[in-house]
Amino acid sequence: MGVKKYNFYAGPAILPQEVMKKAQAELLDYQGIGLSIMEISHRSKEFDAVIKSAEQKIREIFGVPENYWVLFLQGGASLQFGMIPMNFLNKESAADYVHTGEWAGKAIKEAKLFGKVNIAATSEDKKYNYIPDKFNFSSDAKYVHITSNETIGGIQFQNFPDTGNIPLIADMSSDIFSRKIDVSKFGMIYAGAQKNIGPSGVTLVIIRKDLAEKCASGLTTMLNYKTHIKEPSLYNTPPCFGIYIIKLVMEWIEKLGGISGIESINNEKAALLYKTLDTSSMYRGTTDKNSRSKMNITFRLTTEQLEEKFIKEATAAGFIGLKGHRSVGGCRASLYNAMPLEGVKELVKFMEKFEKENK
Amino acid sequence: MGVKKYNFYAGPAILPQEVMKKAQAELLDYQGIGLSIMEISHRSKEFDAVIKSAEQKIREIFGVPENYWVLFLQGGASLQFGMIPMNFLNKESAADYVHTGEWAGKAIKEAKLFGKVNIAATSEDKKYNYIPDKFNFSSDAKYVHITSNETIGGIQFQNFPDTGNIPLIADMSSDIFSRKIDVSKFGMIYAGAQKNIGPSGVTLVIIRKDLAEKCASGLTTMLNYKTHIKEPSLYNTPPCFGIYIIKLVMEWIEKLGGISGIESINNEKAALLYKTLDTSSMYRGTTDKNSRSKMNITFRLTTEQLEEKFIKEATAAGFIGLKGHRSVGGCRASLYNAMPLEGVKELVKFMEKFEKENK
Repeated sequence: MGVKKYNFYAGPAILPQEVMKKAQAELLDYQGIGLSIMEISHRSKEFDAVIKSAEQKIREIFGVPENYWVLFLQGGASLQFGMIPMNFLNKESAADYVHTGEWAGKAIKEAKLFGKVNIAATSEDKKYNYIPDKFNFSSDAKYVHITSNETIGGIQFQNFPDTGNIPLIADMSSDIFSRKIDVSKFGMIYAGAQKNIGPSGVTLVIIRKDLAEKCASGLTTMLNYKTHIKEPSLYNTPPCFGIYIIKLVMEWIEKLGGISGIESINNEKAALLYKTLDTSSMYRGTTDKNSRSKMNITFRLTTEQLEEKFIKEATAAGFIGLKGHRSVGGCRASLYNAMPLEGVKELVKFMEKFEKENK
Repeated sequence: MGVKKYNFYAGPAILPQEVMKKAQAELLDYQGIGLSIMEISHRSKEFDAVIKSAEQKIREIFGVPENYWVLFLQGGASLQFGMIPMNFLNKESAADYVHTGEWAGKAIKEAKLFGKVNIAATSEDKKYNYIPDKFNFSSDAKYVHITSNETIGGIQFQNFPDTGNIPLIADMSSDIFSRKIDVSKFGMIYAGAQKNIGPSGVTLVIIRKDLAEKCASGLTTMLNYKTHIKEPSLYNTPPCFGIYIIKLVMEWIEKLGGISGIESINNEKAALLYKTLDTSSMYRGTTDKNSRSKMNITFRLTTEQLEEKFIKEATAAGFIGLKGHRSVGGCRASLYNAMPLEGVKELVKFMEKFEKENK
């Protein structure tokens, strides 16, 4: 085994060690069946138990009410950006989008291919470094779309807007399962798995049953949510191994005390790093304090040269993925669920040492 | 470890033991980086090396010419059924489809949503138990679509039709990499990974560059092949772990002597089982002899009661997944690449014993 590494990349993220060890132990022989979970039919009773358990645990842990479907799809949030307007919009109708940065922007671009888009709020005026708190919702919007956390800008909704009878749809790819959410306030929640839920290649979709009824007709079968509701995530072969890992991750969250357990660890991790930024004369956070993300913490050093040096030395010390997204520069530490508090403590120690050495 | 099991399911299939052992050994620490291949960024240099090597090996082993793109997508063949007509058809144009059974039928259903479909040949008259050898191709078809192997009917194209200047598109989900193919005869080849290439959740697409240029505009970004060509399979987060397993499977095929090595083993496996069917008075193959699939061997016993008993006893003896698809009944043994010759020998031994005991 090489030097202990802490992965601060924006995704795919690390997975809990406990999950990885269990996956390794049963990789060749899943519960005594003599085959890997990867090597059996998605219609076998063994896989059926896995997918049902994954769904059940998601429902329990995340508090998903009975009037919602839980689906495991493919294609990531990027495919959802297209599927949502394809299913719920047409050239004569409109949806409201809140523009908070790179990911919201991508969702908006796809929606415009299928219908009218109202920008209900945007933080473009300050380069997307905050979450707007005033929204100009339309009364006839088919839905309101938000991005709960922006990985590049490092901002996160602290509270969700009240959209009344209009379904609120949220891309939670980068902060799902990181904090308590009232699912019943949403029409739909979706997330690529690769930050907080499992490996890349699975997309979790939680959709309210009455909204699902409104899917457009005439779509290609795989892109209609109803297809995956009718044959629960098994219309075609699902990404079985990824779903199995999700089940293990849910068991791990359960053991930590569910969402409130993981949320308090996440609060502690983020507080520790933000405190370092706020008390330093070398590092500074880049976002509005009221919009700070607990998942992706973006910061700058006093000069670009120093940033380069910092990233280089951090990488050598085992802290990888600290370079900010190429579109904004600077630094970023992603503290997803599986990043242990220990990892943040070590990073903070390294940052303090670096600051002292480079004064 | 439980009783040694042989998985004859139509998919997901077993993977080579060597591949599974290597994946297990490096699951927690990929080549000394201190993290799993599942836990690092798809933009890291380590994953970049994996995806490039997977592509390179596919090109070498399968003989993919320079004027083709090799893409790793998501959604399985089922999503391709929609993506192909979406990209290459419109309401004013037509494509030719060869109807050979369940899978061809699904592809046809999706194509009809986007354009005109000519059935260039069908084996419906004999319940899809053969591959047609006469084709009524249209001169103005945008492409010709075939299904190289039907997993339910147990039939397989032995030779491919000459479509002249019209691009031939083949769904090779269930027999890709099982035999030598002249890729240059195809406009596009696609396949879900879960039979011969890797775990479920990855779709391999091999597309000729001039055909890719003809993709429709106005499609949602993720459904345009050009998106995945421009940012080679990395427009969004790909199914990283599946691509890594594909790389290992390619290395395994390489060691067996490439496609010709695996093809001769596949020929031997199929010959052994078909011989058992042809010389028995209890078992009989269900398909036309000139269309027999080497991947999915379908057969019946003299009575349904006997079939039930056979499947039950076979399962108990460790031969799982022998039940035919519910739409056709009977029995089916899927002999994908990773099924060792030994597994077929053991199955044949069991079948002979069962026949003797139940005369």
